[in-house]
Amino acid sequence: MNHGKFIVVEGIEGAGKSTAIATIKETIEKFNISYVTTREPGGTPLAEQLRTLVKSADHQETITQETELLLMYASRSQLLANKILPALEQGTWVIGDRHNLSSIAYQGGGRQISDSILNTLADITLKGLKPDLTIYLDITPELGLSRAQARGELDRIELEQIDFFNRTRDKYLQMAASDNSIVKIDASQPLSSVRASIVKTIEAFVSQQIK
Amino acid sequence: MNHGKFIVVEGIEGAGKSTAIATIKETIEKFNISYVTTREPGGTPLAEQLRTLVKSADHQETITQETELLLMYASRSQLLANKILPALEQGTWVIGDRHNLSSIAYQGGGRQISDSILNTLADITLKGLKPDLTIYLDITPELGLSRAQARGELDRIELEQIDFFNRTRDKYLQMAASDNSIVKIDASQPLSSVRASIVKTIEAFVSQQIK
Repeated sequence: MNHGKFIVVEGIEGAGKSTAIATIKETIEKFNISYVTTREPGGTPLAEQLRTLVKSADHQETITQETELLLMYASRSQLLANKILPALEQGTWVIGDRHNLSSIAYQGGGRQISDSILNTLADITLKGLKPDLTIYLDITPELGLSRAQARGELDRIELEQIDFFNRTRDKYLQMAASDNSIVKIDASQPLSSVRASIVKTIEAFVSQQIK
Repeated sequence: MNHGKFIVVEGIEGAGKSTAIATIKETIEKFNISYVTTREPGGTPLAEQLRTLVKSADHQETITQETELLLMYASRSQLLANKILPALEQGTWVIGDRHNLSSIAYQGGGRQISDSILNTLADITLKGLKPDLTIYLDITPELGLSRAQARGELDRIELEQIDFFNRTRDKYLQMAASDNSIVKIDASQPLSSVRASIVKTIEAFVSQQIK
């Protein structure tokens, strides 16, 4: 049996990840491909508990940058071992709301944690797994955060300053420019255009896999 | 003001760490030294939640070696930033029930995770902090585990096989032999002898600090 494919959606707050995931699901359903969806941090019972801890803004104590980083990778390790790898091995595709690129962008770009630390954690945790396709929804922090604010309360990470998100976006752009498996889509376009770009990208990707 | 000193008690299950900590407290109280106690994993509200997650044996999912390792260091980062460093800076001594040496022994020795991974995590998390004195209570896993069993239910880590604890003890012994700040005490001796050795070690240490 063929292995499943791993498709990830990335981008800062308000870029439109949820809508993009819905569009990806509709598109691959047309090809009768079976899939599961995941999200990070989270996606397993233990990882969801870690998500709650790391995103909570009301702790009685400061969460260190290092704790945030280590909890993100702990969550990722659980998700990989208990959900992503078993699915891919069964031939099921996985559609992920965020994956390792989020840590590179947010912790590496936003928090300015060094590449060598991030690379070591990725080596420990990922054991070579890499998404087959990443859709990066590019948007300015100004526009993304105004959309996220319109949705309601912001979590601890979403409450960061605009400079943090500018560094995060810069790192996303830098990674997208250097990795052919990352497709950048302009998420400031009208929704119908964003959707059309996603459909086109997914259809092209699926065609390559099943030809 | 002088910085406080950081004293850690280490050893496998059933070595007698709790009794040793009580003895250390009594001894340094005689010198009117102010102190706080900590334990790892745990010691802050968030770190205690991580302790519960990592030690629980009834998860619906397997905890990967990597998650266990990352949660131990996440807990340690919280404890260091929010409890150990603030205490030491105020001149308060810290008495710790386990610290980084436990990860070297259990995850490095027991789980056979590489030194380079452990060193990287220690670099990220500890930022150079090292206990001023570590008391390592040495005991065979056979004797230690039979004592721990007599105390009641064993947690997820304490349910490991004897080979795991033999590798853990070997790593403790190896580290104790190569680091002058680690004092090895034979914990298979009668309790009164173990206590006397601890009192002697602590009195000598305090005398060095205050002379």
